[in-house]
Amino acid sequence: MKPNDIALLLTGDELMSGDTVDSNSAMIAQSLAAFGHAVTEKITLGDDRARLVGALQRTTGHARILVMNGGLGPTQDDLTAELVAAAAEVQLGLHPDAERHVRDWCAERGIEPNDANLKQAWLPEGATIIHNPRGSAVGFAIEVNGTLILTTPGVPGELRAMLPEICERIVAAIGGGQTHRVRLQTFGIGESTIQALIDEDDAPWPESVVLGYRAGMPQLEMKLTAATASPEVEQCQQTLERLFGDHIIGEDDATLAGALQQVLRDQGKKMVTAESCTGGLIASMVTAEPGSSSVFEAGFVTYANSIKHSVLGVSEASLETDGAVSEAVVKQMLAGALTESGADIGIAVSGIAGPDGGSDDKPVGTVWLAWGTADNMHTLRTVLPTDRAMFQKLVAAAGLDLIRRQLLGLPKLPHYFSRRAI
Amino acid sequence: MKPNDIALLLTGDELMSGDTVDSNSAMIAQSLAAFGHAVTEKITLGDDRARLVGALQRTTGHARILVMNGGLGPTQDDLTAELVAAAAEVQLGLHPDAERHVRDWCAERGIEPNDANLKQAWLPEGATIIHNPRGSAVGFAIEVNGTLILTTPGVPGELRAMLPEICERIVAAIGGGQTHRVRLQTFGIGESTIQALIDEDDAPWPESVVLGYRAGMPQLEMKLTAATASPEVEQCQQTLERLFGDHIIGEDDATLAGALQQVLRDQGKKMVTAESCTGGLIASMVTAEPGSSSVFEAGFVTYANSIKHSVLGVSEASLETDGAVSEAVVKQMLAGALTESGADIGIAVSGIAGPDGGSDDKPVGTVWLAWGTADNMHTLRTVLPTDRAMFQKLVAAAGLDLIRRQLLGLPKLPHYFSRRAI
Repeated sequence: MKPNDIALLLTGDELMSGDTVDSNSAMIAQSLAAFGHAVTEKITLGDDRARLVGALQRTTGHARILVMNGGLGPTQDDLTAELVAAAAEVQLGLHPDAERHVRDWCAERGIEPNDANLKQAWLPEGATIIHNPRGSAVGFAIEVNGTLILTTPGVPGELRAMLPEICERIVAAIGGGQTHRVRLQTFGIGESTIQALIDEDDAPWPESVVLGYRAGMPQLEMKLTAATASPEVEQCQQTLERLFGDHIIGEDDATLAGALQQVLRDQGKKMVTAESCTGGLIASMVTAEPGSSSVFEAGFVTYANSIKHSVLGVSEASLETDGAVSEAVVKQMLAGALTESGADIGIAVSGIAGPDGGSDDKPVGTVWLAWGTADNMHTLRTVLPTDRAMFQKLVAAAGLDLIRRQLLGLPKLPHYFSRRAI
Repeated sequence: MKPNDIALLLTGDELMSGDTVDSNSAMIAQSLAAFGHAVTEKITLGDDRARLVGALQRTTGHARILVMNGGLGPTQDDLTAELVAAAAEVQLGLHPDAERHVRDWCAERGIEPNDANLKQAWLPEGATIIHNPRGSAVGFAIEVNGTLILTTPGVPGELRAMLPEICERIVAAIGGGQTHRVRLQTFGIGESTIQALIDEDDAPWPESVVLGYRAGMPQLEMKLTAATASPEVEQCQQTLERLFGDHIIGEDDATLAGALQQVLRDQGKKMVTAESCTGGLIASMVTAEPGSSSVFEAGFVTYANSIKHSVLGVSEASLETDGAVSEAVVKQMLAGALTESGADIGIAVSGIAGPDGGSDDKPVGTVWLAWGTADNMHTLRTVLPTDRAMFQKLVAAAGLDLIRRQLLGLPKLPHYFSRRAI
C-alpha cells in the first residue's frame, strides 16, 4: 500500500468510443492539486462488468484512495454500487439518506419516484453518502482493504459540485494541507520564451517555488505553487511582473476581454469594433463577458467592400487602389466606426483568413490592424500563416490586447508583434 | 490473451496534473471505430518509470494490441523507447530510417541535429518505424509476448497524421473490415425526444443497425452504424429523415453555418445580421466557415440603444415605450439592417443575456428574434433560462437555423421553439 497513492477509475462506454472527451479527470486533478495531491494512476473502462471487477481487485489494497467517476445512474449499465459492494463483500441496501435525497429530488420536480430513480439509493452496506446538490444520484464512500473508495457521478456539473466534499474526505484520510498558488494570465508570449527569459535573468529562483504553465488559447497561464504564502513566492511574482509585466492580463481567471472591460470602466470610456476578416469575433469576445453593455458601444462587421464604403465611409478609391486589406482602408474603417458610434476608442481589422483569397503580395494570413482614438491612431501589418480558425482567434485576441495596451500606456508592440510585424 | 483486446497507454505528467485535457484517446477510438474496433482499456500515467514498467508488464501478453501515446520526445522525461526495449528485453539502437527522418527534419528547418534530436532515433532493436509526417519523432512497432506495441507522439496534430498507418497495422494484425457509418447532423431536437419518437414510430428498427448519438453544442449528431452498407441502413436513414427531416442540417461534418451558407449560395442570396444580446456571435459563426464572403454582406452589433437608433434607424419612441427587448425594436433592427446593407435576408435579436438586467416582465433569458426579408418578416419571443454563454450560443444557433428554415420553406417553428415559444 502506498500511503499517498490516489487512483482514478473512470467508467462509461462513451469514454471508450471516443464520443466523449473526458474533462472530468482534469477537473478532479486540479481540485486535488490545491491540497498538494496528485492522481497517480488513471484507468478508463467501458460499462464492462468483468473489466471493472479486475480493476477494482487490482486497485483495492494498493492505492490508498480510489476515486470512481461514472456508473451511478439509474440504468442497468450503471454498475458502480453493485461492483463496489461485491469488492467489499457486503450487500446492497436501500440507504435511508440516499432514499430521502432521491424522493426530495423527485418531489421538487413534481414526479413520483420510480424503480429507476430509487435504484440510485441502493448502496453498499456500511457506505456513507456524499451529497450531490445537483442531481438525483448521490456519491458514496466506503473502505475496502485499506483503500478509501469515493464514487462520483459522470455528469460534469454534478461532479464539480461534489468536489469540495471529495477533497475534504481525502484530506481527512491522508492529510495534506492547502498549497499556495498564484495564477497569472498572460497574452502574447510563449512558454519557451518565458522560460528562456527567466533562465537568463539574474534573480535567483528559489527551489521552494515551482513555476508551471497552462496553455490556453489565446492565453497562457503562469502558475506559482508553493507550500505556503512566503516571501519567496512574492519574490518570484515580482520577478515575473518585472520580466513580463505588460503581457500579464491579470490574476486567477482573468480574460483579455474582462481585463479590457475593466480598464474601459476605470477610465469611463467606450469602445467600438470594425471587423472584416474576424467577422464579428472581436465584438463577440468582448460581449461574452458580463457587464459589456457599460463599455461596448457598437460593432460593425463590414464584410463586403460596398459595406465598408456605405456604412463606414471608406473611400471607393482606397478600396480600388490599395485593396480591402491595406493600411488606408483599416484607418478609414476605424475613423468611420468612431464617428458613427461616438465611441472613445476602437479597433479595425482587415485581412485574409483563407483558405482562399491570398496572393503573392498579400498571402493568406496577412492582416492590417488599426487601433486607437481619432487623434491617436496606430496601424500594423502582420502575417499569421495558420488555419482560418486560429487566424481569426489570434487577430481578435491581439485586437483586444492592443486597445488595452493603448489605454494603459503600455508599449505598443508586445512580444508577439515585435517578432512578427513586417 | 484476448484476441481483439486493444489497450491504450497514455503517458505525460500534464495528463495527471489536470493541465491538459486528453483528446488524443477519443481521436484514436474514433479512428478504430471505423474499422469495427474499440479500445478495451485505457491507462493514463505520469512520466513515472516504475508505474510505466508495471503497466507494460500487466498489458503485454494480455492485450493483443497496445497503443502507447506520448513519451517519444527529446527530453529525459520521454521514456517510451527505453521502457519498451526493456519490456522486449532488447537494446536500444540508432535506427537508420529514424535517423534519416530526424536529419531530414532538421535540414528542412536549417538546423544541425543535436543529441536531443537524435535521441528520438534510438529505438528498440527489431522495431519498425511508423512514419511521422508532421514532427521529428517517429513512432515504432514491436511485438512483445504476443502483444503488438505501437507508439505514437502526444502532439495531437502529429498523432492525427499517423493514425491511418496505425489503423492499417492493427487491421493487418487482427483483421476487421470497414464498418459502414452514416452521420447526420441535427439542430433543435434532443436525444431523448429523438429516441421517444423512434420508439413510438410504426417502422420496425432492424437489429443490424445501431443508432448512436454524439452531443455537440449546439448540434447533435445521429449516427447509424452497421457492418456494411445495406437496405436496412437505407431504411433507417429514411425513417430518420421522415421523422426529423427539417431538423437535419446535413451529413458528415455539416455545420449550421455551413448549411446556411450553402442554401444562400444555391439561391444566390446574401444575408445580414443585427445583434444586440449575442454581441456579434451570429456574424462570427457564419464567417468562421470558409467561403462566407460570397453570402455574408454585413453585421451590425448595435449594443447601445443610441446605436440601434443612429445606425439602424430604430425609433426612439419604440426604444422608450417598448424597450430594447421588444418585438417592435427587433423588427426595426432587421428592417434597418436590410436597408443599410442591401442584403436579401437577415436576422435581428435583442434579449437579456444576464446575469444582470432582468425584470419580472422580462426575466434574464428573454429574447426577441426577427428574421426574414423586408416583405416577409417573422418574429418570436422565447425565454432560455440558462447561463450567459449558453444563452448566447443557443440564440445565435437558432438565428442561423431560422434563416435556413425560411429559405428552404421549412416549418417556421422547429421542435425547440414549439415547446418554448411564449
